[in-house]
Formats: sequence, structure tokens, C-alpha cells
Amino acid sequence: MSKRKTKDSTEPNLFESPAEFEAAVAVMDPPAESETTAAANTGKKRSRRTHQAATAESMATKQRDISISEFFAKNRHLLGFDNPRKALLTAIKEAVDNALDACEDAHIRPTITVSISAFDGSDNKFRVTVKDNGPGIVAKQVPNIFARLLYGSKFHMLKMSRGQQGIGISAAGMYGLLTTGEPVQIITRTNPKKSAMHYHVQIDTTNNRPDVMLDEECEFDLPTGTSVTITLEGRYQKGKQSVDEYLTQTAMANPHATITYSTPDGSVTEYPRQTQELPFIPLEIKPHPYGVELGVLFKMARQSDSKKLREFLHLEFSRVSARVAEAICKKAKLSVNLRPNAITLKEVETLRAAINSTKLLAPPTDCIAPIGEEKLIDGLKRVVEADFYESCTRKPAVYRGNPFIIEAALAWGCKNTDGNGDDKEPLMRLVRFANRVPLLYQQSACATYKAVLETNWRNYGLSQSKGALPAGPLLLMVHIASVWVPFTSESKEAVAHYPEIIKELKLAIQECGRKLGIHVRRQKRIKEEMVKRGYIETYLPHIGQALRDILSLKDNQVEDVVAKLKYTLEHSRKI
Amino acid sequence: MSKRKTKDSTEPNLFESPAEFEAAVAVMDPPAESETTAAANTGKKRSRRTHQAATAESMATKQRDISISEFFAKNRHLLGFDNPRKALLTAIKEAVDNALDACEDAHIRPTITVSISAFDGSDNKFRVTVKDNGPGIVAKQVPNIFARLLYGSKFHMLKMSRGQQGIGISAAGMYGLLTTGEPVQIITRTNPKKSAMHYHVQIDTTNNRPDVMLDEECEFDLPTGTSVTITLEGRYQKGKQSVDEYLTQTAMANPHATITYSTPDGSVTEYPRQTQELPFIPLEIKPHPYGVELGVLFKMARQSDSKKLREFLHLEFSRVSARVAEAICKKAKLSVNLRPNAITLKEVETLRAAINSTKLLAPPTDCIAPIGEEKLIDGLKRVVEADFYESCTRKPAVYRGNPFIIEAALAWGCKNTDGNGDDKEPLMRLVRFANRVPLLYQQSACATYKAVLETNWRNYGLSQSKGALPAGPLLLMVHIASVWVPFTSESKEAVAHYPEIIKELKLAIQECGRKLGIHVRRQKRIKEEMVKRGYIETYLPHIGQALRDILSLKDNQVEDVVAKLKYTLEHSRKI
Repeated sequence: MSKRKTKDSTEPNLFESPAEFEAAVAVMDPPAESETTAAANTGKKRSRRTHQAATAESMATKQRDISISEFFAKNRHLLGFDNPRKALLTAIKEAVDNALDACEDAHIRPTITVSISAFDGSDNKFRVTVKDNGPGIVAKQVPNIFARLLYGSKFHMLKMSRGQQGIGISAAGMYGLLTTGEPVQIITRTNPKKSAMHYHVQIDTTNNRPDVMLDEECEFDLPTGTSVTITLEGRYQKGKQSVDEYLTQTAMANPHATITYSTPDGSVTEYPRQTQELPFIPLEIKPHPYGVELGVLFKMARQSDSKKLREFLHLEFSRVSARVAEAICKKAKLSVNLRPNAITLKEVETLRAAINSTKLLAPPTDCIAPIGEEKLIDGLKRVVEADFYESCTRKPAVYRGNPFIIEAALAWGCKNTDGNGDDKEPLMRLVRFANRVPLLYQQSACATYKAVLETNWRNYGLSQSKGALPAGPLLLMVHIASVWVPFTSESKEAVAHYPEIIKELKLAIQECGRKLGIHVRRQKRIKEEMVKRGYIETYLPHIGQALRDILSLKDNQVEDVVAKLKYTLEHSRKI
Repeated sequence: MSKRKTKDSTEPNLFESPAEFEAAVAVMDPPAESETTAAANTGKKRSRRTHQAATAESMATKQRDISISEFFAKNRHLLGFDNPRKALLTAIKEAVDNALDACEDAHIRPTITVSISAFDGSDNKFRVTVKDNGPGIVAKQVPNIFARLLYGSKFHMLKMSRGQQGIGISAAGMYGLLTTGEPVQIITRTNPKKSAMHYHVQIDTTNNRPDVMLDEECEFDLPTGTSVTITLEGRYQKGKQSVDEYLTQTAMANPHATITYSTPDGSVTEYPRQTQELPFIPLEIKPHPYGVELGVLFKMARQSDSKKLREFLHLEFSRVSARVAEAICKKAKLSVNLRPNAITLKEVETLRAAINSTKLLAPPTDCIAPIGEEKLIDGLKRVVEADFYESCTRKPAVYRGNPFIIEAALAWGCKNTDGNGDDKEPLMRLVRFANRVPLLYQQSACATYKAVLETNWRNYGLSQSKGALPAGPLLLMVHIASVWVPFTSESKEAVAHYPEIIKELKLAIQECGRKLGIHVRRQKRIKEEMVKRGYIETYLPHIGQALRDILSLKDNQVEDVVAKLKYTLEHSRKI
């Protein structure tokens, strides 16, 4: 235990600036160390003096409602706004995700412009604009979409999309408001024949409702589309976990999109469309009855518009035909004409047991579309030059009734991975995607990381320390596509540890890993063979020479013997 | 890339049960593998056929409000309810945390009973009851506290407490309702002279409002206190990350509490109080002006009840005396009599600049109380037997204006750590606490884990692979105490990566680490010395013998020479 000298200083410390103050309290500073003990002591004394024991009544006066926006303003790290650099990335990510979703929903090939510029000459405030050629947004929805948390179209659907919670873009606007006081600016046009609308909106955090500061017609250079501008405190820096990395990886997973990116230092990067084809048209699905919990089933029935149990089952779930619905009712000994909104909890329990003992089709899988094994490798090739590529798209699996697909792809012998370390043999690099969105933060919290750690890479010829990623010139890309990706937090940076998902991840990684193992072992064998051949080529002529001298052979005889000897040696692989 | 044979099966697969179905879709099953391709193809065709391109108008019809309880019901892994085993732990954790907080607020020594029993003879449904001797809960608050998310007393205060969000216990009740349909049962008594109240409440997830099913007077065996019972789907299993581990660690960090625990298998464990003293009486503090963001300052001013700027600054912040408030106003060139609710954004910007250039006291630290260096070691000793213990309580630091204290303690040469692995040299074990609550999940997402990885343990004589925890018989305990612990998710399992927190963690770990290094090196030296002494003891008599023969010495002369030789050899430490 460390003993510290206690200084009897009762004089308070004064600081010149917040930076100095934080430095003074944060950095170990011997003369000030007594503060802990002193403060703790005086603290204890003072608290004993001023603190009244609470009673149930005094507590009751303090209990009250917490607005969702107050909650997230205080917990803004949950939304990805923990520090200025990440905040800049998160704001752009939310806007780009929405832009891509909107274009795809409207069957439009996305053309997206991202620009970051310094705000008001400041070096820590930026103005971020993301513009898309999507269908635009109906005027009266604009304030809710951009300045109200938990408002959106994607939450109540089971459909593969980037956004899902109705939080992201409003949260970015809220963070901008908190740090700069500036409202979110939106220009949107839904019809080429009408003029565009221009809005300034900001969130009222106490009530989670939008305040509209400006609402007027304006010019816009696209027939339809949306442009959103957020002013926020941030830090622009290239490299790992940067906006640049996010946009490069986004372009890699979305070859159907054109993205133009201008940075505060004036450089412009363009990622042109690689394919004219839209990648997939995601379909909305209904929940599969096997995944539905008792309480959820009860609530769905009680709130159903269906008049009869049979219709309820048939219409509100996927894979329940009218015939199957009847069979389920019969098995549960419930009338097909039972009114769902009058069902009792006991009846729901019987119904659920009946469902779970009925043969049903697997959930439809046309609602999720993987990137595909070929496109995965194309994507990898665009990013790293390597000796060996392998990819695997698993078939759909299910967690809590939600279908999902796992994909993995790897590149081995990478020439330009910068890896995670600085030794000669750096650790592998893991690149993660969820519904085509790159995940740049919280790698170690992610189900993918767990799956990689739990894979025995030594089986595939790689070295791996316990509790660490394997080492080697390896880049592993993993993609989860689902109608509902379970993230570990609202900032959507890591996938939650559902056992079904980890299992599929491991199977996908193992499938690629086995092929990698064959390649690595073959490489090793070839290397050994080359060494052996080197020996043969070097020493064989001398042996020939010696044989000629000993056995008095002619030159052609020597050649013949040497050739035979070489063949024999090269074909005996046992070294 | 793996090529698969495509089977022309158009026949749908039928399954006997959900388990079989999930197994079939989840496990690699060659005959069914064609499904991916087939489904994706038909999917594509079907989607082209049935999917209409969305327009701004069609999207607008789908955009709507999302209730906070719907949000968390769908994202229940955010609250710690991802799987049945963790759900059981989380429900108990939330109830115990609340019980401890309530007792401490009322200056009552906590006596808490936790019991888990099988529900209705089922092996996957449990009834969990947590009973405390706290001050009880005022009748009309019961429904809101137990069946409404984001409702509570702790969110709007800056005060060290276990609960902080007003989500936990209602979320546990909601999970119980979803999985078993059973309401939360509460018995509470606030006054020994009045009878206790008995409630059955459940959350209406669509509106995030409580439904009261039962409300009656009843008997209760304590003068004041609360008992909460939740029925939920769960799995009871001992070992790592179990309820048992949570309660053991809770007892370790809360020596002032008595906890009695009965498990479903009928065993009863009691953790008696170790001290009669209440550990600390946390005080509520006001925000420190250095940590306040522009938007927050603006909002606080506009909503302030103060009539003058000077009063606003003095009353709503800590460490701003009337004199300092005047100085700030003067520096900002604003009138001390300016009405805060009429302030403009530009004026707030000037005000904030003036605050940040004014000398201010560090935030008060009597609002947070560390466990203390001695108690930390006592706690460790209760859990592991080891050769060497060391602890460190840092002085308070600040992140985003919130004071916090980091503590670290380590035990080296542990006899009974089970470590993280199964090799001869297992990885160290990390035990984490936040405001005296053990954190059992998401270790690798935690700031503490990052701090341990970024510490160079080789400096302290331990082996450490890149990207992994160090190896050795080491247990490291880390505690963060703060008026507001920033967790990575609502389930409060890991601390977010704020740079200020990671820095303090590393300093605390290093302080213990340096002492450990000295010990480890000394141990090594002692070991080497023992080896040397062994040699000396073995060979010295023979040398004496030889000297006698060569130099013809007498026995006493030999003894004298040998003693001198031994002294010289033992005191020359250069081997």
C-alpha cells in the first residue's frame, strides 16, 4: 500500500484555465497528492454535517420522468459522441447511412457528396454537409426526422437497412446544438416540378420535440434529394478510425454508389460507382412465429385488428398459411374464430406451445442479401494486394426469430496492411461490416472479435498468443447482414454476443481458415522443396564428376546417371 | 472462394420443432446448402416483382414515433437481457443495486435477502425476490418506479450512486412480462405504524406507462422496507458471471451490508456485515462550469429561475462564489443583472470564454468516496491468498466536468485464482467495480481492460503477449467511483473509453505495478541468492578440506578461513 505524506494545506488550489486545472488534477503531482486524503476527510466531515437521511417521502419528491433526449444528451457516448474526433465521424456516418438507405428504397443509384469545412474560422468547429440524390423528404416530416429522437420508419419493420432506430441523425443534430448552438440545416426536394424546401431545426431536449427556426422555399441543384448540414465541435484527423477510412470502406461494401468527399484541407476524393446494378431490393418480412416471446405474442394478439385467431396467425406472421393456422388452433384446442383481442394469457401459453410443436418453413431469406463471395474478394483486392484470397457466404440463420447471414473473406500475405502493432509479425487486421456499414470502433466488444479469438488459428499454420488475435500478414473481413442487427449500443459500433451469431461467425471464419491452412502449409512445403532443389542443383554436378572419376564413365553416361539421380531425388519428398 | 453444388430443390423444408429448425438453418448441412443460392435467386425475382420503389410520400406514411419501451424491448441486450442466464443476473443486480442505494440514502445499514426459486415447476422460469430494510417507497410512486422506463430520482442529480438512469428495475420487470406474462410484485412499507402495501404492476410497452393490476394492504415482517418479486425466463448456473459471483463481489465491495442468498437448489449463503459503519454519505453536487458545453450552458440559462446572471452563475454551478460570478460577468462584458432567460447564443459564447479564462477551484470531491487503500487490500485478502498485495487510491480527476476517483489493487502469487486460461501460466484475472457494483460482463469493451492492455507489464517482470493481458498468478481489482459513471450501454457492464478515465486508470495500475515490479525482481534475486547459497554450503566444506591438506592448517584455522570465505562469497552479490 502506498503511504503518502499528508501536507496540512487548507489553501484551495486555483487554476488559470480548464486545461491547466484538468492537467493538475489528472496528472500525478506530488505536492498536491495530499489533496485526496484531505479532501476525503473534510468531505466526510462536511457530509456528516449537511446531509440529512432520506425518507421515502423526501425521495418521492425527487422521482420524476426523464426525457429520452435528456438521457442521451447526458449519455452521448452511447450514441458515438464521446470525443470530438469520433463525433465528426459519427455525424457523417449517420447522414451517409440515411442517404444510402433512402436511395435504395427509392431504387435510385446513390450519388452522395460529403463535405467537411472549418466553421467560422475555428479549428475545433466544423460544418458537415451530406447531400444525396434520393427521393427527398415530405415537408412536414423534416422536423421530426432531424430533431426528435426515436422517430423513424425503420424501427417497426423487419427489413435489412442501415438505419434502424430513429435516433442517429437527430442525435448528431443534438450534439451539434449542444456544442455549437447551431441548428441542423436541411434542404430537400421531393418533386422536380416543385421548388425545394429549406429548414433550420433544433431539438428541444427537455421534451424531445423539434423547434423549427426557419422554413422557406429555396433553390436546389438536384431534381430530388436531400442535403443535411450539421455544425459541430469535432477534430479532423486522417488515419485509423477516421472519416476517410469510413468512406473508403463504405465505398468497398457499396460498389453501386458514387461518393465524393471534400476534406477541410481542400482535397477532394471521388469513389466512382463500380456497377450500375442496384445490389438488392430488401423486402420487409413479418416475424417468424418460432422467435416470438410469450409476452410479445400476447400483446400482438390483444392489439390485433384481426377478428379471428386464424386470420391473426395467418396475416401477422411469416410462414403461417391459412391451413397451418387452422392446424395450430386445433392443436392448441382453441377455436379458429376466437377473438384475438379477448385472448387470455393462459390461452396464449397454449397457443405458443402449439406453434412450437408445429412444422413450419424457415423464415424467408429474400429480406437479406449478402455481398456475395465474388464481390467480397473484389472488395478485398481493391484494398490490399495479397498472395491468397478466400471468401465464404454462409446460408441464412436465425437469432430470436430474425434471419441473418454471415460472410467472411480473408487476404493472406498482404503487402500493405499496417496491422495492429509494430513488431516484425504484426497481429492480423479485422475489418467489420454490418448491413454494409463499416464498424470502426469498439472492436474488442464485438461478437466478430470474440469469434476470431475463439478460433484456433494454429490449426491453420498461424501463430496466436492466448487471449490475442493471431499474428501474420492477414486481413479478415466479416459482414453480418440481418433484418435487425443487434448492436451493443445505440452508436452501432459492435455486434452483441448472441450465441447463434457467434456460432455462424466461427463457422464462416473456419471455412475460410481451412482453405488458408491448406495454402499456408503448401507454401511451407514449396519453400522446403525449393531449398532441397537448391541443394540438388548445387551438388549434383560434383557428384557426377566424382562418379565419372571413380567409375570411368563417358560424358553421356554421366549425363544419364545425373538426370536419373536428379529425378529420383526430386521425387522423393521425404526430407 | 468456395464453390457449392446447387441442388434444384424447390420443395420447402419442414421442421418438427423450433430447435430442430434453428439447428437445421444454423449448422452446416450439405444437402440444404443450395438454399442460400436458391432463396437468394427466387428472393431477387420475387422482390423485383413485389417491391415498389418508395417515394418521399410513401416513406412519410411509415415514419412515426417509437416508444422508449418498444425500443428497449426490441433491443433488450442493451439492458443486459441477451440470454436467460445473464437475464437472471441482471434482474437481481438491478434490484440489489436499488436496495443498497435506498438504504444508504436513508442512513440505514443494509440487510438484504435475495432468493431465487423455480416458478411453477418449470426449469427455465424463475421467481426472484429481493427484500431490503430501506425506507420503503411512497405508494403513488410504486407503479412508475417499477413499470416505467426512464423514471427515477438519480438521473437529474450529480451524486455517486449505483443506479443512475431510471431504467434498470423497470427493464427487469418488462423482461419478466415479455417472457412469462407475469407482473412485478412489490410489497413496501414506509412507516412502522402503517400497514404495508402490496402491488402487482406491469408496463404498457406501447406507451411506457404502468398498468396496476393489484393494489391492497398487506402484512410485512419489517418496520420499513421493500420487497420486489420478478418472474422471468432464466437459467441458473454457478461459476463465472453467475449470480453467486456477483453477490460475493458485492459483499467484498460493500462490507457494511448483510446479504442472505437462497438458490433454487435450496442452499443458503450468508455474507454478514464486516463493519457497523456506513461507508460514506454521498453528497449531491452542482455541475462545475469548466465542464459545461455551450448548448448546455445556453439551455441552463434560458430555463433558469434566477433573475440575474450573477445569481445564475453563483447558484447553479459549484465553485462559483458571488465574487467570482461578478468577475466572470465583467470579463465577458455582460451586465451582472442580465436576465439569464433572455440571454442570446452570442452572449453565452462570450460567457463561456470568460468562464474558461477564470481561475476556479477544482470541483468538490466530497461527493465521491473511494473504498480506500486498506479496505481494498482487506477485500482482496478475503477472496485470494497471495504472496504480495498492493493498492492505490488516486486523487480525484475530472471528465466532462464530472469528478471521479480511480482505485486499483493487486494480489500477486495467488494460490486460488482460476485465471482466464488453462495453461501452466494463466492470464491475469481482472475484477472490475463501478461505484461499488461488480461488473461481470463485457470486460474487453471496458476502459479498464484497455488500460491494462496498454500498460507495459514486462517492466514489472511479467510476460505479456501483444494484444493480450499479462500472464501470471495476478489478480487486479479496479474501481471507478464517480457522480456519473459513463457506461458503454444501458446494461452498465463496461466503462466508456473517455481519455481522462483511461489515463487515471493507467496511472493507478502503474503505481501498483511499480511496487509489484520491485517485489517480483526481489523475489527473483532471492531465488538466485538461494541457489548461490546452496552452492556455497555444498562446496565450502570441501574447499576447507583441500586448503587444510595444501596449507597444513589446524582445524580451528580451517574454520576461521571457511567462515571468512563464506562471508566474502555471500556478500559479493555479483554472480
